[in-house]
Amino acid sequence: MISQNEYQMLKNAMPFLATLSQEDRNALLQSAIHGHFDKGETIHDGTRCTGVLLVKSGCLRVYLLSEEGREVTLYRLFEGDICILSASCAIHNLTFDVLVDAEEDTDLTVIGGCAFAELADRIPEVKIFALERAVSDFSDVMWVFEQILFMSMDRRLAIFLLDELSKSNTDTIKLTQEQIAKYMGSAREVVSRMLKYFSGEGIVENLRGGIRVKDKKRLRAIAM
Amino acid sequence: MISQNEYQMLKNAMPFLATLSQEDRNALLQSAIHGHFDKGETIHDGTRCTGVLLVKSGCLRVYLLSEEGREVTLYRLFEGDICILSASCAIHNLTFDVLVDAEEDTDLTVIGGCAFAELADRIPEVKIFALERAVSDFSDVMWVFEQILFMSMDRRLAIFLLDELSKSNTDTIKLTQEQIAKYMGSAREVVSRMLKYFSGEGIVENLRGGIRVKDKKRLRAIAM
Repeated sequence: MISQNEYQMLKNAMPFLATLSQEDRNALLQSAIHGHFDKGETIHDGTRCTGVLLVKSGCLRVYLLSEEGREVTLYRLFEGDICILSASCAIHNLTFDVLVDAEEDTDLTVIGGCAFAELADRIPEVKIFALERAVSDFSDVMWVFEQILFMSMDRRLAIFLLDELSKSNTDTIKLTQEQIAKYMGSAREVVSRMLKYFSGEGIVENLRGGIRVKDKKRLRAIAM
Repeated sequence: MISQNEYQMLKNAMPFLATLSQEDRNALLQSAIHGHFDKGETIHDGTRCTGVLLVKSGCLRVYLLSEEGREVTLYRLFEGDICILSASCAIHNLTFDVLVDAEEDTDLTVIGGCAFAELADRIPEVKIFALERAVSDFSDVMWVFEQILFMSMDRRLAIFLLDELSKSNTDTIKLTQEQIAKYMGSAREVVSRMLKYFSGEGIVENLRGGIRVKDKKRLRAIAM
């Protein structure tokens, strides 16, 4: 069974919980288990329906893995976030597999895939919740897809950062995201989102009023 | 107003129509208009909520377009299929834009985006229908994404077909999909799906018991 604190977190992440009957809510909560995963551990390998994951602390990375072992990060999940693609049995029409790793030491509440699917089949609010999460993931994935496909913003930003770096004798670029966007002729939101992605990949660190480049080698690879 | 024949087609594509109240059904049907588009015409350019499209005859191509003008085909829709990504106002969390062209002379029924969104906000069955279509599109897009990202099956199949072609003096390869899969050490479904994709792109034509290569230049580009 889960603690009061954990229940509060679940309720914030899954607003439909409050509208369920006592019986349905209990069935869902009784399927929930704690999970602690060390940094680097695989939580969901795509071969079975692991369940719905709530991040209590830490960070999850959702990614694709090719037969040749190549990985592409799709998005990350942080405290309070829900992972639904690991519960593929609860979503019809979902025919692809992703993997989920703990990117830091991570504590999860795992809601059983079967218990969740049973509710989703019966209660429209639960089904809509699951589908809307999946569509939101779809949007995140499309962003990564477009960046990689069209080799535009990631490459352009990498080239820009390397150019700026070559002008300074440090590993830090003293420009705000606003300034970078202006110099690149791009929108601040686009630059900001891409810097967040670079930061998540450990390539840069976003500082107040500047950017520190942590992995020049990878930045060069992107710029090529 | 739409014809009896058109209504039958809509009902097949949107099973929820039968469960709507008379009033809601009329509101939806009254928003519907006919649309004829010539081959090559753009139906949805991603800038506004065009509506839900039902293909009465012909073929639609859904694709991404980069700022530099590069296109990537995501999937195609045929007679009886529904396009939901062109009604982005009806789906919250959908933050990306796709384009839709008529790939052949095409007749459509276009259901107004606003009328559809109004119903989807109020009636769970309609919302679930829209979300499930979007998640199904998500699966199709992920397949394309993986093929492009990991450069595996498309490239491997292109190389195989060019090899086989160089052995013959014609533009036709006399192997079944079963045989190709066996020779490549792959699954028949994978080869079959990729050949269907190649065929949709006009690169090959799938014959009974063989494949005719229509665009050797593009096949070479994929194999590079």
